[in-house]
Amino acid sequence: MKKIINNPETVVQDSLRGFAAAHADLVEVHFDPDYVVRAQPLPPGTVAVVSGGGSGHEPLHAGFVGTGMLAAACPGAVFTSPTPDQIHAATMAVNAGAGVLYLVKNYTGDVLNFETAAELAAAEGVEVASVVIDDDVAVQDSLYTAGRRGVGGTVLIEKIVGAAAERGDDLAACAELARRVNSQVRSMGMALTSCVVPHVGRPTFELGDDEMEIGIGIHGEPGRERLPVEAADQIVARLLEPILADLPFTEGDRTLLFVNGMGGTPLIELYLAYGIAERFLAERGIQVHRRLVGNYITSLEMQGMSITLLRLDDELISLWDAPVHTPALRWGV
Amino acid sequence: MKKIINNPETVVQDSLRGFAAAHADLVEVHFDPDYVVRAQPLPPGTVAVVSGGGSGHEPLHAGFVGTGMLAAACPGAVFTSPTPDQIHAATMAVNAGAGVLYLVKNYTGDVLNFETAAELAAAEGVEVASVVIDDDVAVQDSLYTAGRRGVGGTVLIEKIVGAAAERGDDLAACAELARRVNSQVRSMGMALTSCVVPHVGRPTFELGDDEMEIGIGIHGEPGRERLPVEAADQIVARLLEPILADLPFTEGDRTLLFVNGMGGTPLIELYLAYGIAERFLAERGIQVHRRLVGNYITSLEMQGMSITLLRLDDELISLWDAPVHTPALRWGV
Repeated sequence: MKKIINNPETVVQDSLRGFAAAHADLVEVHFDPDYVVRAQPLPPGTVAVVSGGGSGHEPLHAGFVGTGMLAAACPGAVFTSPTPDQIHAATMAVNAGAGVLYLVKNYTGDVLNFETAAELAAAEGVEVASVVIDDDVAVQDSLYTAGRRGVGGTVLIEKIVGAAAERGDDLAACAELARRVNSQVRSMGMALTSCVVPHVGRPTFELGDDEMEIGIGIHGEPGRERLPVEAADQIVARLLEPILADLPFTEGDRTLLFVNGMGGTPLIELYLAYGIAERFLAERGIQVHRRLVGNYITSLEMQGMSITLLRLDDELISLWDAPVHTPALRWGV
Repeated sequence: MKKIINNPETVVQDSLRGFAAAHADLVEVHFDPDYVVRAQPLPPGTVAVVSGGGSGHEPLHAGFVGTGMLAAACPGAVFTSPTPDQIHAATMAVNAGAGVLYLVKNYTGDVLNFETAAELAAAEGVEVASVVIDDDVAVQDSLYTAGRRGVGGTVLIEKIVGAAAERGDDLAACAELARRVNSQVRSMGMALTSCVVPHVGRPTFELGDDEMEIGIGIHGEPGRERLPVEAADQIVARLLEPILADLPFTEGDRTLLFVNGMGGTPLIELYLAYGIAERFLAERGIQVHRRLVGNYITSLEMQGMSITLLRLDDELISLWDAPVHTPALRWGV
């Protein structure tokens, strides 16, 4: 295992210390239990949007804490759900009197622990709503999931719902919006290489020198099929065809196209894939109105990518365009 | 070789097509010869700042074209200097009557080809100034260089000089500023893994399963020494000690600390290294006033990082903070 780390057991906390130092104007990091909150407290009466999950997917989620996006993020151990006490501490820290919305990627441990935290908060009189994100069309059930997994759509939902909370939407409206965006977004990923969880020390899975995994999960969970590596044209088609068929997306749809790197994929390849994807959609009459290209929801150093497609309407476009100021996404300020 | 590409011979153009589609609001990409210019023409009487170099270092340089940074970028083949005709075409496209400043990383081919382009422009009555960037303290001469290599400092110089051009500084002032920033910035890099140039198809160099290369160049050129992989604390010290000794940086200096990933390094490791580096500097009385963490000058999918330290003064801080709107760096707009 080759990594720039000190101790495999403390990599998450060691990294959070650097993250806190690098972004002290935007975030505050608390330890034991670990959580990240906005440096500027929420205005009273604002819904606090909270997410979290295993570490190793950076910048998700802590990189999205800030104005116009998350109020708090709860980083678990690498590829491990955050504990209820982490989520509860974050909840109590950011509650501004208008309730707290949990955005939860659909993994069994995450769902259970966010549920427990919601009960703890309710016992203290804090209203919590939860929305489970399950945008991955690759597989129905998986290694850590009943139902579909939550993947790239999470980034878009956090941005859009964060903007709604920022403009003053109430808890029920934010939760309804999150469900609506989740219903309009689909994703699928692929990997060229595996990744190594620091405290495990060996690759999560093995992939041959000429193989790729189509439909991979963000923890290296198995996908749909293992194939010889193909040209980018074919890879993009293998991701987009199931995405389009699933919603389904149809001619005339306005969309946000998000090409995401898994952490070890260079930008030159992500832009190349983005170009193919946009042309693939154009040939089917699907318009790309907004786009995002880069490493936003990753699997440590894994090489590979995911494609996420969101059907837009005027409201979603306006919320996507709203100012955001976080470590990983910033515009309008 | 595993990459998300179609044809190793056309990977740069195929990627530029996607880049153009993703950022049509900011940039225009021209082909044959290949160059990237701002979508919004420079105001007449503004100095045009132009850079370029081999591809494979994305987002450098094309990702820095836009308001407040570069007027144009010239992407060569992977790890290969842009040709004089590329640079000349970009020069004539962006010249706004106040002259053109070339920011050139110190590699023999780049220096020669930018010189030739400057002669071509002069023959057509366009005034050109050139500043060569050589911030890498690792080695004196190298595989492609006489003198020191230009590395991470390039990103900071492009931002700061771009801001000066944007506010209306003349050509002589922009060139003098570029030289001054170059004199105040030092960098050093290291690699955990090699990278594969697409049209070559095999790793640029070989590194054992337990080895790292200290002082690596951004094309995989040999560094100072090959060592067993160490803890992040030691790695950061091996990069920062030569940087501090070289300028030298001294107690009380205000600095910008830039921790850069080589393309395949996950953010969790870069933030971890950033935290160590900031503490290392604090222990020596060196203050970090600005910071940048991420993959900004890369070597394809190489795992590793570089550290760049710039000594700041009030003017450099103000130019760094000035609004910038490019595909890869954005704030204040």
